[in-house]
Amino acid sequence: MGQRIQIVGAGLAGTLAGIYLAQRGYEVNIFEKRGDMRATTIEGGRSINLALSKRGLRALEEVGIREDVMALALPMRGRMIHDREGRQTMQPYGQSDDEIIYSVSRAGLNMKLMNKAEQTGRVTFFFQHPCHNIDFEKGEITYGHPGGTEITESTVGILGCDGANSAVRMSMQKSTRLNYQQQYLEHGYKELSVPPDEDGSHKLSPDALHIWPRGSYMMIALPNPDGTFTCTLFLAYDGAPSFNQLRSKSDVRAFFQANFADLIPLMPRYEEEFFENPTSSLVTLRCSPWTKGSALLLGDSAHAIVPFYGQGMNACFEDCRLLNAALAEHEDEWVAAIKAFGSARKPDADAIADLALDNFVEMRDSTADPIFARKRELELQLEEAYPDRFFSKYRLVTFSHLPYHVARDRGRAQDSFLMDLVRPVEDVSELDLADVMERVEAALGPVPSEKELV
Amino acid sequence: MGQRIQIVGAGLAGTLAGIYLAQRGYEVNIFEKRGDMRATTIEGGRSINLALSKRGLRALEEVGIREDVMALALPMRGRMIHDREGRQTMQPYGQSDDEIIYSVSRAGLNMKLMNKAEQTGRVTFFFQHPCHNIDFEKGEITYGHPGGTEITESTVGILGCDGANSAVRMSMQKSTRLNYQQQYLEHGYKELSVPPDEDGSHKLSPDALHIWPRGSYMMIALPNPDGTFTCTLFLAYDGAPSFNQLRSKSDVRAFFQANFADLIPLMPRYEEEFFENPTSSLVTLRCSPWTKGSALLLGDSAHAIVPFYGQGMNACFEDCRLLNAALAEHEDEWVAAIKAFGSARKPDADAIADLALDNFVEMRDSTADPIFARKRELELQLEEAYPDRFFSKYRLVTFSHLPYHVARDRGRAQDSFLMDLVRPVEDVSELDLADVMERVEAALGPVPSEKELV
Repeated sequence: MGQRIQIVGAGLAGTLAGIYLAQRGYEVNIFEKRGDMRATTIEGGRSINLALSKRGLRALEEVGIREDVMALALPMRGRMIHDREGRQTMQPYGQSDDEIIYSVSRAGLNMKLMNKAEQTGRVTFFFQHPCHNIDFEKGEITYGHPGGTEITESTVGILGCDGANSAVRMSMQKSTRLNYQQQYLEHGYKELSVPPDEDGSHKLSPDALHIWPRGSYMMIALPNPDGTFTCTLFLAYDGAPSFNQLRSKSDVRAFFQANFADLIPLMPRYEEEFFENPTSSLVTLRCSPWTKGSALLLGDSAHAIVPFYGQGMNACFEDCRLLNAALAEHEDEWVAAIKAFGSARKPDADAIADLALDNFVEMRDSTADPIFARKRELELQLEEAYPDRFFSKYRLVTFSHLPYHVARDRGRAQDSFLMDLVRPVEDVSELDLADVMERVEAALGPVPSEKELV
Repeated sequence: MGQRIQIVGAGLAGTLAGIYLAQRGYEVNIFEKRGDMRATTIEGGRSINLALSKRGLRALEEVGIREDVMALALPMRGRMIHDREGRQTMQPYGQSDDEIIYSVSRAGLNMKLMNKAEQTGRVTFFFQHPCHNIDFEKGEITYGHPGGTEITESTVGILGCDGANSAVRMSMQKSTRLNYQQQYLEHGYKELSVPPDEDGSHKLSPDALHIWPRGSYMMIALPNPDGTFTCTLFLAYDGAPSFNQLRSKSDVRAFFQANFADLIPLMPRYEEEFFENPTSSLVTLRCSPWTKGSALLLGDSAHAIVPFYGQGMNACFEDCRLLNAALAEHEDEWVAAIKAFGSARKPDADAIADLALDNFVEMRDSTADPIFARKRELELQLEEAYPDRFFSKYRLVTFSHLPYHVARDRGRAQDSFLMDLVRPVEDVSELDLADVMERVEAALGPVPSEKELV
């Protein structure tokens, strides 16, 4: 084919999409407003990490860099719940070694994808080349570069992989009837860090995602390979307690002593970091349609979500896989393929956005609830006894390839059914699992088969 | 007081708000990006008209220009339904002379408001002064003018009355966590016109809002004082039939012959006008919060809605009245008053947006439905027999001052109750009204008293 596709954005979605398209035989140019992250040091020691799971791994496998990425990844086998007294309880994510999520460094993963893209011989990166505007009729991108402004045309199409503040989407919004919604949480987040122990090892168990659930707010911590943890405090902007109320080091100290006492000895600089690091907002973006002419929004530009299901990156990678499948199905008729992909994928993007919002409540509140803990225990027993028949909501979302909207609809109904079932039961080990399994299937039907649906 | 308030936008909301504020003793500057409409001719003979009803009239009465405006207005006593065979049926809006809506020219009304504002001696208009940006911390507006760019500060506060494409809202969106949604209809609209008869009189009955309901699309016509009607065709952009399918004069002719045959002899230039006039989109905008620092979004900038309930302008005028009431209640503590107004009013803005979307279906589809016609007949009988106890949804919205969210919630429940009730009844005059009234109140409770709620 040898035709040219222009991608805006060299983040995770843009770079993986570039690899897929190069492997299909396209010539790919990727325009990125920032400099080449491989040539610059990452700023200020902040290490953003993400949870990679089954959906993301499948796409990485397809393009042949799964093993390479896994070398960077730290397995997390469950949620480690920290109560106010410092007691820790492990809630496993699943029963098998297959049902594990992986902490990976965003920057490390992105650089690996960039190198892989260049190795195809068909992908060219243009760094410090911000997209200014798109002419969707002509398929032209106006972009800036260190020497001025230029216009380039695409011979096939354009992918807007430029994230939540997408310039491609803003161009669409100017020239088309784009339905658009941005919804902020009342909560913001702030990153803090746990340095390694004196011997370089992790100060907390490195094979878990740690959670300090505190009702309306929470702290989480994900392990990094260098022995550190990246902690994130999720807290309301206003009200009590809130970021707005924590104005001095002594306010922060009192708040930590009351809520995160077990973290204080692990975080020597938490009072300083609290005021050095920014408070950032949490937004859900939805829009439709994702296509205009030969341009498609892909990844966060089309559906930025809150981070509470650990599915933001996985959803973006699944986008890339499904776009590739649509191109195969439509024999590389670009416009037909992007339209089919966009309209089929939109309900799933909405579903994972909903699930991520639900999971904030679950993480900060329900993980500390004894009835929720009983439900999780029962779910794990059912998954062990009926691995092909029982899928908890978490498993449907994180460890299956079922469309997200199926995972949301069945997951929500099943959660509510199981919570009702365990509420009066003190000891779930006394339940007859075969009977429970029958009642679940009588109420909800059998879980759809992936092969049927995917 | 003598303190200064800056208003962005000299449209209907900005000008009426300016009058209210001047009457409270404030000095008001109004920045408008367009020229003074009083000094220029209106372009191309297009005469946009709006339906003025009870909520809008109450605000005009309060500031003392109701009579002046009514001199421009044409009463419309009901919907005149035109079927495909050209038969006309009148569906009155209400029972009393109080329950009439008025067709007014947008431009004529706006000019009267501008004159009234200047007559207060406290309002100054700055035309050709577009707002470029707001610094909400400092309360400063950066604006352009024919000679360059300047910055002005407000001593009290800022009102963003600059409509659906509000520059004030866009400044807010850059600097705050603004929840925002824009939702387009699949339908667009195109204006056409019916000229006067040879003797200068109206070619259709001038005391009605004419509707040609055709299922998924419709035409409406509102009378103007000069003997013309402004017609608006609401039709999908894509599909069958749609604007996209009407590509030639012969396409348009065939479409009109099949659907609006009775209009053809009244519209000598419809085939030309169809291609001369633009197809415009229909959008619902919602956002929150409406305030940032001392700035408030008011009118369409906060809640642009589709035109199908004839409440866009009325809602804007009610905004002005309620803002004035909030200032009185808060003894002119500006920030407290705008915050209280904004959070109390938001659910009503959402409700009228919902009602306007509902009413598109009702106008284009249900007005032609015999069961709907029976329901309207029963409603009018109930309103006549029980004027203080029975309010149809239309009456709650259009002829009451009940909060829009009350009108929506009760109106929807009552509609569904009455449709079920009349479905099996061939002749509603056989119904025992006292019995129906009792059943309505048993199901829904008595209608809330305005005095209680307002």
